[in-house]
Amino acid sequence: MEITNVTEYDAIAKQKLPKMVYDYYASGAEDQWTLQENRNAFARILFRPRILIDVSKIDMTTTVLGFKISMPIMVAPTAMQKMAHPDGEYATARAASAAGTIMTLSSWATSSVEEVASTGPGIRFFQLYVYKNRNVVEQLVRRAERAGFKAIALTVDTPRLGRRESDIKNRFTLPPNLTLKNFEGLDLGKMDEANDSGLASYVAGQIDRTLSWKDVQWLQTITKLPILVKGVLTGEDARIAIQAGAAGIIVSNHGARQLDYVPATISALEEVVKATQGRIPVFLDGGVRRGTDVFKALALGASGIFIGRPVVFSLAAEGEAGVRKVLQMLRDEFELTMALSGCRSLKEISRNHITTEWDTPRPSARL
Amino acid sequence: MEITNVTEYDAIAKQKLPKMVYDYYASGAEDQWTLQENRNAFARILFRPRILIDVSKIDMTTTVLGFKISMPIMVAPTAMQKMAHPDGEYATARAASAAGTIMTLSSWATSSVEEVASTGPGIRFFQLYVYKNRNVVEQLVRRAERAGFKAIALTVDTPRLGRRESDIKNRFTLPPNLTLKNFEGLDLGKMDEANDSGLASYVAGQIDRTLSWKDVQWLQTITKLPILVKGVLTGEDARIAIQAGAAGIIVSNHGARQLDYVPATISALEEVVKATQGRIPVFLDGGVRRGTDVFKALALGASGIFIGRPVVFSLAAEGEAGVRKVLQMLRDEFELTMALSGCRSLKEISRNHITTEWDTPRPSARL
Amino acid sequence: MEITNVTEYDAIAKQKLPKMVYDYYASGAEDQWTLQENRNAFARILFRPRILIDVSKIDMTTTVLGFKISMPIMVAPTAMQKMAHPDGEYATARAASAAGTIMTLSSWATSSVEEVASTGPGIRFFQLYVYKNRNVVEQLVRRAERAGFKAIALTVDTPRLGRRESDIKNRFTLPPNLTLKNFEGLDLGKMDEANDSGLASYVAGQIDRTLSWKDVQWLQTITKLPILVKGVLTGEDARIAIQAGAAGIIVSNHGARQLDYVPATISALEEVVKATQGRIPVFLDGGVRRGTDVFKALALGASGIFIGRPVVFSLAAEGEAGVRKVLQMLRDEFELTMALSGCRSLKEISRNHITTEWDTPRPSARL
Amino acid sequence: MEITNVTEYDAIAKQKLPKMVYDYYASGAEDQWTLQENRNAFARILFRPRILIDVSKIDMTTTVLGFKISMPIMVAPTAMQKMAHPDGEYATARAASAAGTIMTLSSWATSSVEEVASTGPGIRFFQLYVYKNRNVVEQLVRRAERAGFKAIALTVDTPRLGRRESDIKNRFTLPPNLTLKNFEGLDLGKMDEANDSGLASYVAGQIDRTLSWKDVQWLQTITKLPILVKGVLTGEDARIAIQAGAAGIIVSNHGARQLDYVPATISALEEVVKATQGRIPVFLDGGVRRGTDVFKALALGASGIFIGRPVVFSLAAEGEAGVRKVLQMLRDEFELTMALSGCRSLKEISRNHITTEWDTPRPSARL
Ligand SMILES: Cc1cc2nc3c(=O)[nH]c(=O)nc-3n(C[C@H](O)[C@H](O)[C@H](O)COP(=O)(O)O)c2cc1C
Ligand SMILES: Cc1cc2nc3c(=O)[nH]c(=O)nc-3n(C[C@H](O)[C@H](O)[C@H](O)COP(=O)(O)O)c2cc1C
Ligand SMILES: Cc1cc2nc3c(=O)[nH]c(=O)nc-3n(C[C@H](O)[C@H](O)[C@H](O)COP(=O)(O)O)c2cc1C
Ligand SMILES: Cc1cc2nc3c(=O)[nH]c(=O)nc-3n(C[C@H](O)[C@H](O)[C@H](O)COP(=O)(O)O)c2cc1C
Repeated sequence: MEITNVTEYDAIAKQKLPKMVYDYYASGAEDQWTLQENRNAFARILFRPRILIDVSKIDMTTTVLGFKISMPIMVAPTAMQKMAHPDGEYATARAASAAGTIMTLSSWATSSVEEVASTGPGIRFFQLYVYKNRNVVEQLVRRAERAGFKAIALTVDTPRLGRRESDIKNRFTLPPNLTLKNFEGLDLGKMDEANDSGLASYVAGQIDRTLSWKDVQWLQTITKLPILVKGVLTGEDARIAIQAGAAGIIVSNHGARQLDYVPATISALEEVVKATQGRIPVFLDGGVRRGTDVFKALALGASGIFIGRPVVFSLAAEGEAGVRKVLQMLRDEFELTMALSGCRSLKEISRNHITTEWDTPRPSARL
Repeated sequence: MEITNVTEYDAIAKQKLPKMVYDYYASGAEDQWTLQENRNAFARILFRPRILIDVSKIDMTTTVLGFKISMPIMVAPTAMQKMAHPDGEYATARAASAAGTIMTLSSWATSSVEEVASTGPGIRFFQLYVYKNRNVVEQLVRRAERAGFKAIALTVDTPRLGRRESDIKNRFTLPPNLTLKNFEGLDLGKMDEANDSGLASYVAGQIDRTLSWKDVQWLQTITKLPILVKGVLTGEDARIAIQAGAAGIIVSNHGARQLDYVPATISALEEVVKATQGRIPVFLDGGVRRGTDVFKALALGASGIFIGRPVVFSLAAEGEAGVRKVLQMLRDEFELTMALSGCRSLKEISRNHITTEWDTPRPSARL
Repeated sequence: MEITNVTEYDAIAKQKLPKMVYDYYASGAEDQWTLQENRNAFARILFRPRILIDVSKIDMTTTVLGFKISMPIMVAPTAMQKMAHPDGEYATARAASAAGTIMTLSSWATSSVEEVASTGPGIRFFQLYVYKNRNVVEQLVRRAERAGFKAIALTVDTPRLGRRESDIKNRFTLPPNLTLKNFEGLDLGKMDEANDSGLASYVAGQIDRTLSWKDVQWLQTITKLPILVKGVLTGEDARIAIQAGAAGIIVSNHGARQLDYVPATISALEEVVKATQGRIPVFLDGGVRRGTDVFKALALGASGIFIGRPVVFSLAAEGEAGVRKVLQMLRDEFELTMALSGCRSLKEISRNHITTEWDTPRPSARL
Repeated sequence: MEITNVTEYDAIAKQKLPKMVYDYYASGAEDQWTLQENRNAFARILFRPRILIDVSKIDMTTTVLGFKISMPIMVAPTAMQKMAHPDGEYATARAASAAGTIMTLSSWATSSVEEVASTGPGIRFFQLYVYKNRNVVEQLVRRAERAGFKAIALTVDTPRLGRRESDIKNRFTLPPNLTLKNFEGLDLGKMDEANDSGLASYVAGQIDRTLSWKDVQWLQTITKLPILVKGVLTGEDARIAIQAGAAGIIVSNHGARQLDYVPATISALEEVVKATQGRIPVFLDGGVRRGTDVFKALALGASGIFIGRPVVFSLAAEGEAGVRKVLQMLRDEFELTMALSGCRSLKEISRNHITTEWDTPRPSARL
């Protein structure tokens, strides 16, 4: 049966993957309320489409941190992709390049920065977890820079790992045939089995809970790469991020895998956008599964979005071809949404093209 | 088992029709959120019925673009009705005439304007899709005019076809024994099979994506028929429509088949009505299945409504008799609603006869 | 299994009764939205209970139109009770008397006013449907007066019968062994079978659709009994009712059997109460199934409530004993609600003891 | 299968316990609307987590009525714990002590105050039901005081027992092998079987319905122990409680077992907190099942929370070990919530760390 939308890959991945792996990819924290809400909140934002505009030419290109890409749809960092498919991050990197967009590589990739770079040209960002051992961090950032990565996405919502209950029940750990390749030879590449989630223990042991805004400044002393702060959910922190020298913000709740009952990212986005007052770009990830979702994020002020699970699920189903198909479907849907809304370029997408529950008075009443 | 309401024809049609055909008729775009919402939104509008008014005589007649009809319930254009029943548009035309109301014929009918005209007297509108080839458009409009059609309903929400996923999965195409009769002999009457929806490919190939407001003016140079702009969802576009010379507006989301996550039409109606300030009539289609829905639309300012799927489903179930029954049931229910609300003519139906979630302060509080 | 609440009689009645009869009792109009809403709306009204008040003595007595009753819970008129149980209205009358409360007898009872009067003492109201033949009406009112009935509940929401679809499908009609006893010998006591609901045809044939406010005045010329207008849902009509000489108002939507998508009665109550400004008492029926519901209606300004279906369902299940049990359970629950809210008499039940969604600012915010 | 959250003990208890016992523990009053709402309302409160704060050290300790405890999570009084497990209140007392927190012993415990005291050191409160026989009350309070209990939690929401329908159907009564140990030898230690709930009859017979604010003052004449008023749901009563000399307030709806359709405690909390203006501490119980719930209560102004059913369910499943595990899981989850919200001590938890539906303008709009 033909795949007609991104979500269908979820069920296929569930069939193909070992339960431990599928659960790790799919799960959210605790009650998984925010996991559902990341999707539900999109459905509460409605369009106000404009008609009778010549939409024979639709331009979806945009520029992110100075890099031109084919569409505002990018790949979020997701760990350990070789559990999904032997080609793992290689496949993702190639699919993103082919689609003319940016891939973000996870610190916890099962392929190293150098390996991913070796797949060919492409604009890539590196997602950074800050380890207690700062030498490790410094070397890793340098390697990413040397390997041609263009930005650091600093993940700030993970001083400890969220409770993902199926990982605890499954005693999740990285399968022994795989390695966190960026840390190979550093004693940090393997994950021990634990009494609960092996990853939670790994994080408790290695990741630096003292991480704070001053480390954002320290990071700027060891690299010239622009820093995206990944995991902002409030206007207050958006303002601090600007002061701390961030080049951009990613509104993210880590795919609802950290703190349950945080708002959907699409609900938190506008607060963050308003706080930045246009000084730095704001991106979003979390629950994007449709071209309509991309449009809504842009209408609320995002400069682009990232997708997480759709990549690992399609990778599991069909490897690189799956990831390509996911990017293509989102691209097609987004283009169609633009056409049917009367927008010919990203610049034309405005706040007036949507209406949200928190609009008062509603645009429809502004007559 | 006796049919007691319009919705029951849906299940019967589902049983009778080939899956490809039923799915084409029934589907909405993508997640089908707006498809559900077109119904749900009606249920959030409540009545404020007035009592102890002599309702022994109820007058449902009205005048649309100068033509007197028996009730404010009309037939929307739906394509390819011969897939539902061999009598197709003939049956629909006869049922509408018998009910004393207007039928709108689709550009993509499986019967031509001339054939439909030949079924006998009746007030009919012609729905127009603008093709890239403007000669085709010109000839078609002239033929409709000559065949006695009284207005053009210009569909403006379809520069590209919405993603109806079952049509893609089913590889929907017009069955080979049928023709888009208005284009017979023009090489445009047949629909090729495609890798996805055959209709989507047909639209991509033939329909003019450059269509814009200036074409509304062009259209007025080739016909004297009044033009209804079908597919308006915002006050902004309602105002432009008036300036562009439209004779009326149809608030429509194409039966939720184009852009998913647009509001229900009944939710968008009042914004459009207010913007027109009474200069041109506003009609509505989308999700009308009950006489109570008709009343709600009128209370919110509509001059009448159109029904789409109820026609094709009843046609599939019982041919002309089915369509007659649908129109009769809606008529009966609407008359009953008027009586139980204390309204004796359409003029008496007022905004105070309903209450909506967006009323603040609620009428009930206005004491 | 022991009956512990009023609602449980519904399932028992469903088992015991012929489908045609159960459906007639249970149904609401069309989509039955208001039928659900009559219940759901109660659940959206919450308590603000007061504590540490001596509640060793709870007084539930009240006075209705000058008649003292044991509690503000009364019996609504429901037609044709002998379909439920051979004792029919006799059983209901006895149960209401035993409970020290008022029974309202339907015009369409299967026992006459005289028969019901013969069951013994008791305060009773007579529900009136106005027939085209006004002689019939005049005689009937006089007979009720003579039989000791204390008030007329004039039903104003039924110029035509609502569409109850199962009655249409079931071709509902009064079983041949029963008669509308108040009309025996008048040619109006039997109900013909019809192509749809026999009752709907009966109403169409006999009930006066011209009924209007001036008939309320006419009624006062033929009887001294106080008149309750049954079926008011707006403040506007409440004000007119006072001017027309009504002795009281019953906020009712006829158990959701007439116009679907009217508000729940508990949602419409406060508007009506405010409009009357205390000049005449306001009662409510519709969906009352718990003592908490009774309390909520009183807190919103009702002087008492009536129950409909609980009576016919319990009658079907256990005859007079069932109706007694229903009245007893509601009484017990209501008394408990008063105690747990800190109210010792009906006068102490105040608007501050509840909070509704439409309170702004919410009482909880009034600090 | 490993237990990963508090709620899982419910299903295990349901399997292990006789139906009569499980139902008694699990049930709420009447429709159990408030029972669901006690949980649902938490899900409508969302976090506004702050990032990049050094959360390597999290301090959860707090002081309640002058007593230092390890976390703001305490044990609510629940009656008759030996029905759950032979160790009953002994196990609970030991588990609470081991966790460094407070246990509240029910008046209706199946272990006496002296027996619980004998389990070893620990800070304990005594929950008081006021009997008609005030000598009994006086003696009981003295015994609790002597046994080292540190406060009286005076339950004020139970002048009569709420209708818990399964207890009525099950003819619930204390199993004959057990005694209400605090009343042993007083003729009040046994519960008769009754025609409905044995406990409801017991309450009707023994508990003083005249209890009022002046008894709070009387209580202060017979004991020096601080008095917590348990069962406040309005700001009005919070203010009176302060005047009456209460040392603190517990916002409680008795686990939704008394008056159905009262608000969830988490919805009523802020009104009470505001009314107290910080003069006495406010606690909450009802529906707390997650560390995130604890955080939300504290953000709304609670000084700590109590848990009821999680204790009896885990006791049923695993005795003392179960209760320990429940306290440990809540502790872990709460610590994680603090870390992921950027709060290092209870003092840092602020109103700005959450957003509620009743915030207007929403914090997110305060820019
Ligand atoms: C399986 C999986 C692994 C992830 N690994 C990382 C990671 O290593 N680093 C990181 O910053 N975010 C990680 N995330 C979060 C994603 O970057 C992103 O925030 C999230 O997946 C977006 O939500 P979506 O999955 O709904 O698209 C991961 C998410 C998933 C689902
Ligand atoms: C099967 C089907 C075919 C349709 N074909 C056309 C069409 O050819 N032209 C057009 O303007 N609208 C078309 N529509 C949209 C209808 O005119 C109308 O907007 C819609 O059906 C109203 O919603 P309803 O089906 O809920 O009543 C079609 C709708 C359906 C369901
Ligand atoms: C089976 C049935 C018969 C009824 N018959 C009458 C009637 O004869 N006259 C009338 O005024 N109302 C009639 N009603 C409406 C009731 O008086 C009352 O308004 C309604 O039942 C209250 O709602 P409830 O059933 O939810 O309690 C009837 C209702 C039912 C359910
Ligand atoms: C089985 C059970 C027994 C209870 N017994 C008492 C009691 O004896 N005294 C009292 O004040 N509250 C009693 N409560 C209420 C609790 O103290 C507390 O208010 C409630 O359980 C908190 O809600 P939760 O169960 O959702 O945590 C009882 C609750 C339950 C569930």
